[in-house]
Amino acid sequence: MKKIAIYPGSFDPVTNGHLDIVERGLKIFDKIIVAILHNPGKKGLFTIAERVQMLESALKKFSNVEIDTFNGLTVEYAKKRKAQGILRGLRAMSDFEYEFQMALMNRKLNREVQTVFLMTGLRWIYTSSSIIKEAAQFGGNINGMVPPLVQQKIKKKFGKKSTLAKQKPT
Amino acid sequence: MKKIAIYPGSFDPVTNGHLDIVERGLKIFDKIIVAILHNPGKKGLFTIAERVQMLESALKKFSNVEIDTFNGLTVEYAKKRKAQGILRGLRAMSDFEYEFQMALMNRKLNREVQTVFLMTGLRWIYTSSSIIKEAAQFGGNINGMVPPLVQQKIKKKFGKKSTLAKQKPT
Amino acid sequence: MKKIAIYPGSFDPVTNGHLDIVERGLKIFDKIIVAILHNPGKKGLFTIAERVQMLESALKKFSNVEIDTFNGLTVEYAKKRKAQGILRGLRAMSDFEYEFQMALMNRKLNREVQTVFLMTGLRWIYTSSSIIKEAAQFGGNINGMVPPLVQQKIKKKFGKKSTLAKQKPT
Amino acid sequence: MKKIAIYPGSFDPVTNGHLDIVERGLKIFDKIIVAILHNPGKKGLFTIAERVQMLESALKKFSNVEIDTFNGLTVEYAKKRKAQGILRGLRAMSDFEYEFQMALMNRKLNREVQTVFLMTGLRWIYTSSSIIKEAAQFGGNINGMVPPLVQQKIKKKFGKKSTLAKQKPT
Amino acid sequence: MKKIAIYPGSFDPVTNGHLDIVERGLKIFDKIIVAILHNPGKKGLFTIAERVQMLESALKKFSNVEIDTFNGLTVEYAKKRKAQGILRGLRAMSDFEYEFQMALMNRKLNREVQTVFLMTGLRWIYTSSSIIKEAAQFGGNINGMVPPLVQQKIKKKFGKKSTLAKQKPT
Amino acid sequence: MKKIAIYPGSFDPVTNGHLDIVERGLKIFDKIIVAILHNPGKKGLFTIAERVQMLESALKKFSNVEIDTFNGLTVEYAKKRKAQGILRGLRAMSDFEYEFQMALMNRKLNREVQTVFLMTGLRWIYTSSSIIKEAAQFGGNINGMVPPLVQQKIKKKFGKKSTLAKQKPT
Repeated sequence: MKKIAIYPGSFDPVTNGHLDIVERGLKIFDKIIVAILHNPGKKGLFTIAERVQMLESALKKFSNVEIDTFNGLTVEYAKKRKAQGILRGLRAMSDFEYEFQMALMNRKLNREVQTVFLMTGLRWIYTSSSIIKEAAQFGGNINGMVPPLVQQKIKKKFGKKSTLAKQKPT
Repeated sequence: MKKIAIYPGSFDPVTNGHLDIVERGLKIFDKIIVAILHNPGKKGLFTIAERVQMLESALKKFSNVEIDTFNGLTVEYAKKRKAQGILRGLRAMSDFEYEFQMALMNRKLNREVQTVFLMTGLRWIYTSSSIIKEAAQFGGNINGMVPPLVQQKIKKKFGKKSTLAKQKPT
Repeated sequence: MKKIAIYPGSFDPVTNGHLDIVERGLKIFDKIIVAILHNPGKKGLFTIAERVQMLESALKKFSNVEIDTFNGLTVEYAKKRKAQGILRGLRAMSDFEYEFQMALMNRKLNREVQTVFLMTGLRWIYTSSSIIKEAAQFGGNINGMVPPLVQQKIKKKFGKKSTLAKQKPT
Repeated sequence: MKKIAIYPGSFDPVTNGHLDIVERGLKIFDKIIVAILHNPGKKGLFTIAERVQMLESALKKFSNVEIDTFNGLTVEYAKKRKAQGILRGLRAMSDFEYEFQMALMNRKLNREVQTVFLMTGLRWIYTSSSIIKEAAQFGGNINGMVPPLVQQKIKKKFGKKSTLAKQKPT
Repeated sequence: MKKIAIYPGSFDPVTNGHLDIVERGLKIFDKIIVAILHNPGKKGLFTIAERVQMLESALKKFSNVEIDTFNGLTVEYAKKRKAQGILRGLRAMSDFEYEFQMALMNRKLNREVQTVFLMTGLRWIYTSSSIIKEAAQFGGNINGMVPPLVQQKIKKKFGKKSTLAKQKPT
Repeated sequence: MKKIAIYPGSFDPVTNGHLDIVERGLKIFDKIIVAILHNPGKKGLFTIAERVQMLESALKKFSNVEIDTFNGLTVEYAKKRKAQGILRGLRAMSDFEYEFQMALMNRKLNREVQTVFLMTGLRWIYTSSSIIKEAAQFGGNINGMVPPLVQQKIKKKFGKKSTLAKQKPT
């Protein structure tokens, strides 16, 4: 039987750390569905369509990867897509706590789907989407942390905004 | 002397994990006052009156449990109610950090009241109010995680909203 | 391609928590090799042969599980067995720290093999081999924590030793 | 060469724990620049000018301490000020996780500046700015947790607001 | 009904941190039984008789404290002594992990006894028996960390051994 | 005044992670004394003289680094050497717990010396002396984890011992 995993997340935007998890996951699973959680109550930096575009650009070389979006329960989505696994990357202790609780809840909701944790490569251990956005916003160099298209689009978003401090209020 | 504990929290809504802590606490204390912290600046899913009603329904079988509400400092409230203990349930590491800091602050503010930690039963380790609300919102089955009245009221709140995802944006 | 994982450990003895991980792993992998690490410098409660026997008894119902022993580097063994994954169960924070460091080292030694973490079922969160042995040694009831054959063999090991305390010295 | 560290933070307001870190840091560095991060998107309890005033009052006894404000990237600011170190106080595990990630990001952005961690004195382990504000807001006694001027200003901010709970809604 | 707790440990030797937990515990429980776990397989610095003597000296002022020794399962001992609680002090994260696992195991073995955690006073957060012994062994001043009789006895044990380093082996 | 730090440890043997901390530390301190703790009760893989030799070989390029050995209390040694700081590298959460407790104890013993934490470079996060020895013992490639002389000496220690597993007992 073909082994399928969904890889859920907000991917706002996709980072090289996410791509690393997809590549590792493909050594275990026959197919990975990268699934953007569409949460109407939470506005991101990029629209869902932009996120899909950036993921498609970064992952087009893999024939067994599909980009999708979903809302509602992750386990319901996994079931609908006939996935055996929910793929998650672990980077640090704080990740672990949250992931642990989500995995327990998901198992309670649907006992058929397993949460599978892979470890993010050491080089990506600090590259969360939010910390990258924070750095980029102030003009930090995010070279090598995100795929080229993402870097380009982030630059456009923050534009010329990122001038440095003027210093001390008299 | 009668041993009294307050059990403070937002109880928005009460879960079976909370009830588990009350039952365990009653083996140590002669009386437990479940005290809803009324924080005017933070809007919950349920009104204070609704939370009181759900707690009263779930705890009516215990003659030595009282439901109350308070605002202001927890230690001041404990003192006013002549409680020797502040009861708290521990579920995970992240709980521990926060609880530890609060307990140190409370001790600094009033040295007479002890924070007493009990461990939540294993079955309730993932049932925080917020994760239950998140699951329920998307139509997840929260059977056995909350008392019957709470389940009923949650269903009413989220109503027919919880339809599942429509999928991929083209 | 057939997906294979090794599941390394000392299994001294196998617990129901281990069996839980094997069952979950079989939903992801086509074959699992349970591999007893043979460390000559460290004497266990059971001999390697006894551990193999207990594992075989507990896992005979699965046609796609093999019991094996190895020494040396885990990644070398994985490579030799043509495994894509090293399966590990996570129970708690302290597990995570150690597993994280081992996984990083293993990746450094061989980039082809992925460490795959699954979460141990909630019921098995406290059932490490060592804590079970400690309880059994003092006559604690380990019913439902280990497979029947293991329970029988543990009883034989500790025999009539486990009498309770005589109390206070004078 | 003169050793300089910046000590960045929001200092909203400065606490005795912050002062403790400055004093410890002066045993290692020849000069410390206490640098208030000016984040226009986040409104604090005190204005930047008020924070500067409170820091100046509390630190005037040290000739080798400078108060400053900045926005943008911390490492860029450090470089501009010719600092070798970014000084940070550690209090607890949760601090550590966040500080670790920030330090990794900062190192990636500028390899010349070292993040230097000192341990906050035991007495200040629970005195974060936010927990002090929370206590003060409800009339808690924050004596000995902040410098005199800060205590005075906090009292003024919260004024007569902090009356205690009226109790149970019927 | 009288509320009784056992406070198990090795107390090799008792520290001021232990005494702090006993004092706090007496605000919750009517009687505390300090119970030295007698583990024949593990040789301590002090004999069981010495530990009892030091505990008796340090706790003689409390009429509702009893010193005892036990071996075997803690929960069996608690049951035999008709205790409702097993008292434990929490100091740090690493304590928490271990205590959590022990408490889960104990609950599995006997559901009637609750593990009750109190927080060690801030001043005692670093005073484990083992770290105190390590310091004392090298001539460190352990004044104020242990009761007077313990300090005297430790000094006698380590005698004149604690001379400082001679330096570099050429 | 010249700023001096001692960098205590067992260095059995020195790793590239240690060297990384020394290099970082030299950006803060004018002189670093790498101090091998000589614990007569604990036999290492290498003798103290061998450890000194490997450290001297790896650090000879730095004129402001001294290699030394000591026994007894770290703070006493720091005082004797007129050091303002005790330098320590942090790699992970579990490091933090232990380092935190040691730093508190050291401060209690001598308030004049500050423990200064630097973060080990990401590439060295998994290279503890013990995990490297474990890998090398079984023939793992430790290239790039230790200085050349150390690699050579480790190879000699473990010699041809590291043959791989023979496999399954029958």
